[in-house]
Amino acid sequence: MTEEPESGSYVEPGAEFKRDQRYITTRVTADGRDGYPVEAGRYRLVVSRACPWANRAIIVRRLLGLENAISMGVCGPTHDKRSWTFDLDPGGRDPVLGIERIQEAYFKRDPEYPRGITVPAIVDVPSGAVATNDFAQMTLDLSTEWTAHHRPGAPELYPEALREEIDEIGSVIYRDVNNGVYRAGFAGSQRAYEAAHRRLFERLDRLAERLSDQRYLVGDTITEADVRLFTTLVRFDAVYHGHFKCNRAKLAEMPVLWAYARDLFQTPGFGDTVDFDHTKRHYYEVHRDINPTGIVPLGPDLRGWLSPHHREQLGGRPFGDGTPPGPTPVAETVPLAHTPWGAD
Amino acid sequence: MTEEPESGSYVEPGAEFKRDQRYITTRVTADGRDGYPVEAGRYRLVVSRACPWANRAIIVRRLLGLENAISMGVCGPTHDKRSWTFDLDPGGRDPVLGIERIQEAYFKRDPEYPRGITVPAIVDVPSGAVATNDFAQMTLDLSTEWTAHHRPGAPELYPEALREEIDEIGSVIYRDVNNGVYRAGFAGSQRAYEAAHRRLFERLDRLAERLSDQRYLVGDTITEADVRLFTTLVRFDAVYHGHFKCNRAKLAEMPVLWAYARDLFQTPGFGDTVDFDHTKRHYYEVHRDINPTGIVPLGPDLRGWLSPHHREQLGGRPFGDGTPPGPTPVAETVPLAHTPWGAD
Repeated sequence: MTEEPESGSYVEPGAEFKRDQRYITTRVTADGRDGYPVEAGRYRLVVSRACPWANRAIIVRRLLGLENAISMGVCGPTHDKRSWTFDLDPGGRDPVLGIERIQEAYFKRDPEYPRGITVPAIVDVPSGAVATNDFAQMTLDLSTEWTAHHRPGAPELYPEALREEIDEIGSVIYRDVNNGVYRAGFAGSQRAYEAAHRRLFERLDRLAERLSDQRYLVGDTITEADVRLFTTLVRFDAVYHGHFKCNRAKLAEMPVLWAYARDLFQTPGFGDTVDFDHTKRHYYEVHRDINPTGIVPLGPDLRGWLSPHHREQLGGRPFGDGTPPGPTPVAETVPLAHTPWGAD
Repeated sequence: MTEEPESGSYVEPGAEFKRDQRYITTRVTADGRDGYPVEAGRYRLVVSRACPWANRAIIVRRLLGLENAISMGVCGPTHDKRSWTFDLDPGGRDPVLGIERIQEAYFKRDPEYPRGITVPAIVDVPSGAVATNDFAQMTLDLSTEWTAHHRPGAPELYPEALREEIDEIGSVIYRDVNNGVYRAGFAGSQRAYEAAHRRLFERLDRLAERLSDQRYLVGDTITEADVRLFTTLVRFDAVYHGHFKCNRAKLAEMPVLWAYARDLFQTPGFGDTVDFDHTKRHYYEVHRDINPTGIVPLGPDLRGWLSPHHREQLGGRPFGDGTPPGPTPVAETVPLAHTPWGAD
């Protein structure tokens, strides 16, 4: 997401930040009731590694081992008014979709598509049209509709018995944390900023309390809820703390959440999907109305992400009866220099 | 300092930040050779509590007990193109100088004064004209020219035997730290920013090394050198880390410098001169070209400033053969809510 708004500015003076929550809500399902049946090789997940909402889909796809069933196209970290481009690909074109901009796939779906051009988007390769960009439903469908294509040992990220609890905590995480950082960063008034900032840190305090004696948010294994919290936490010190002024404290100064986030980061399928270089460049270069110079900070030092977290002492079974995913396919590996493993 | 530049913008695209270092260099001396003889009650020190250069003078004046010899006028934290105003005073006028803007005292000195309208400035009250705004010389003169008016027990901040060492470290602190944070924050290019950021943190690493086994920078007592380093460190997490992108780490993440800064903060004459509210409001509200919304962050949590630092284990005698200053005069007390003592 975080598409360029039509006005060209993210902050509306005097106003709160309001996210346009209208998406293309057709779903890719096992029964194909919306015209998009689950089918290996038919769809392409288009992401930006910068974007927390896309990161959610990248992680879930990888944890479930859907890499061979759903291919992935990666947009560059920055974009212009016409949104995300495939500038990382040879010739600036996605090799599967043959397009330069994800916007083209939106217009294939609706030539007058009136809303935000966002990632993540699942594109139906034969028609070249976006099947869905409804990020919240997307990952749940990867868990529940794509089961026939999960790898052996794939974890249950959205187990039936825990869905109510996952949905409940997922919705407060969305409101106060995932979207809360944007409400602070794009606030159009001091008052709106302060309200968002307070709500964010109050929520983080409560989540820290919950996580002080249990390893994961729901049950004793990784679930969709952890994926959702992780994608904001992993960006916290790199962009939200400074750029979005979420600065009561750094994540690295909140012991429980910092250990929790490092635990996930060091779990296969999480940290290996994160590109800190793309993330910082996206936020700092694109949001010129809050960072007019476009200068991208050198900090923070990333090496802390690899330090021991000791969360295994709390028990828990990260993958339940399943197993961790294998190494990232070479073509999808994040450049070492964009990660704590390659930080100097 | 940090006056509004003539162009109305702090950042010059493509360029490095260059501080205009031409000041009014007449000095107030014991022998009065520049026409401004030391005389109790004759001068007024005009400051903003936001400004690190002014903070240096506030601290030295207080450590030396010059409050009764040199009165102090305090400008508000924000200002416009015409620079600092006395908007905190009843009627918006300095009660001693009778002026609304410090600019008027500059024009009394030179009706066509062509350079920056800066604080700290020492104003000659009878003529209403600025005697000097040369901040670097100013504090040395408070130490060496005003000795007849020092309080009993005033420390030697610039002892003759250590001057060479103090000058030497003072000049690298100025270049890489005091002014280094501005060079990072007002850099007009990624390259200029990165050079300033690297130089700043390399210097901080070396200072941390020096301070790992000695309590103060030079000798075993507080000197002018410590005052100079302190005024930047105390603003580091509140403004330089986020607003100026000096974010390899927070001060609070650099154990030696953080303990050193807290030690000084908790020493009478240092922390009791710092107004975090004025500091944050100044930087975030005035520098609209790097913070267009003017929104002032709520963080960081200030309470850490009062935590134990354990630096007394390194020995050292803060005031040498002297004594700490008494409590701040009531009229000059920083509002409790603007300090860690009043932080909620």
